[in-house]
Amino acid sequence: MNSHWNERRPAGRIAYVDGRYVRHGQAGVHIEDRGLQLGDSVYEVCRIANGRLIDRDEHLDRLERSLGEIEMAMPMGRGALKAVMAEIARRNGMRDGLLYLQITRGAVRRDHPIPRPAPRPTLILTVHPVDPAAIARRHAEGVAVMTCPDERWGRCDIKTTQLLANLLAKTAARRAGAFEAWLVDRDGFVTEGAATNAWIVDREGYIVTRDLSRAILPGVTRRVILEAAAETKLPIVERRFSPEEAAGAREAFFTSASAGPVPVVAIDGRPVGDGKPGPLVRQLAELYARHR
Amino acid sequence: MNSHWNERRPAGRIAYVDGRYVRHGQAGVHIEDRGLQLGDSVYEVCRIANGRLIDRDEHLDRLERSLGEIEMAMPMGRGALKAVMAEIARRNGMRDGLLYLQITRGAVRRDHPIPRPAPRPTLILTVHPVDPAAIARRHAEGVAVMTCPDERWGRCDIKTTQLLANLLAKTAARRAGAFEAWLVDRDGFVTEGAATNAWIVDREGYIVTRDLSRAILPGVTRRVILEAAAETKLPIVERRFSPEEAAGAREAFFTSASAGPVPVVAIDGRPVGDGKPGPLVRQLAELYARHR
Repeated sequence: MNSHWNERRPAGRIAYVDGRYVRHGQAGVHIEDRGLQLGDSVYEVCRIANGRLIDRDEHLDRLERSLGEIEMAMPMGRGALKAVMAEIARRNGMRDGLLYLQITRGAVRRDHPIPRPAPRPTLILTVHPVDPAAIARRHAEGVAVMTCPDERWGRCDIKTTQLLANLLAKTAARRAGAFEAWLVDRDGFVTEGAATNAWIVDREGYIVTRDLSRAILPGVTRRVILEAAAETKLPIVERRFSPEEAAGAREAFFTSASAGPVPVVAIDGRPVGDGKPGPLVRQLAELYARHR
Repeated sequence: MNSHWNERRPAGRIAYVDGRYVRHGQAGVHIEDRGLQLGDSVYEVCRIANGRLIDRDEHLDRLERSLGEIEMAMPMGRGALKAVMAEIARRNGMRDGLLYLQITRGAVRRDHPIPRPAPRPTLILTVHPVDPAAIARRHAEGVAVMTCPDERWGRCDIKTTQLLANLLAKTAARRAGAFEAWLVDRDGFVTEGAATNAWIVDREGYIVTRDLSRAILPGVTRRVILEAAAETKLPIVERRFSPEEAAGAREAFFTSASAGPVPVVAIDGRPVGDGKPGPLVRQLAELYARHR
């Protein structure tokens, strides 16, 4: 491994790459890995809480779907993969944090078409700590979001590592003092956040999030919240909404596997509702905490 | 470097990674390289012919532009970079082939926003042989193209390594017996090929290629051909064209740095003109050979 590693923040000391547990600082992939050269790669991020992998099977379901959409197979059986996920958390003593799992099509001489027979895929797992105080603060105070044009490709339902549009949007949002970017499609509707699903509670009191399509990622936490809301008989509708509707909504929030439902208290500098976290997102956060 | 390398075809034995010339089979980047994890990376491919780097300065101009669009700087001065490009070709004894150059934002703990201060970027150079007989055959006989919906992101003018849409289109084309995919936008016009710029000679005899915008890459060879055609007083127009117009055109072709202008003799199974390479693309190929 020739490349440097800028150690700015802690990460798990042990990584898993291609069948081996290795020192994180020295863990590498070949320069002709198709994930690096062609974006030919998918991933998942799973929350670890109290030593448990939250919604592990749902993340693995989505991973398998992402792989299938780009004609890749799971790199090993479910049981073996679950064992590696548990082991990487254990070896790093990680009881609260994030598990990152990436699969690329493998390292093979650069040529665009999907190589046949399939090369051996590259499987990478790492763990990272989270900052529980920062997450608690976001839940308590809510966050601001900024809208940006959705510049992403046509298959946002596949969780690929092609995240440049996402990271440029997030960078713009952060510079404007917002925490997250909400992406707006050509028709003027919010698709989702740069790294989260977007929600509002509309004027009629419905919990609204965009319906599934190729325009958004089928969020694992999105589904958990929809199911929890349905069980609690809260009114739900899956449909598009505009930034204007969101700014005039009773409440707004986003969901992610890292932090569950997080209140959105301002959109493009305009307060949502009274500018404070609303009652319904608090209720959903409690339901989510219980689910976890 | 932990990852395997599937050695199926020859590649240059020596690679350049982060300031060092290393054995290709063992050249790697860190698993948290932002190129691998986030698609935060740009590249160039430059033809080496008779030991010379063709259009080297134009490729470096475009590289610098791509980097600037994602807020990155050149990793070293032009002179130093040119020296590395010459040296990697020399060390591999590569007089005819391709030089591949990739720059990522570097390896730093995963987080979406652009990190500040900037981490040290990752710079990778490799060389690969070309198959001159295969290229000559494509020039002599022409190739077939297949149209596909353009699923790429909104900034195709930046030469990023986010190539999954391109490689899926190319894979579909190859399976259908075509050599290249021509991508068609939502309005029904060809943007460009999966890895080439698209051209026709229209019914009035104009050489037509799509005007520059965020929808296409500003091809180096595209510009060379436009300039050569202008100097030779050939009629040119930069505008959109549809697959239907292309199928009914006098001639069609594509351009790339790897092979210059290549005749397209069929589109979606329908012959272009009489189904043979036309006179104008032959003339442009001669002009290009002279330019080189």
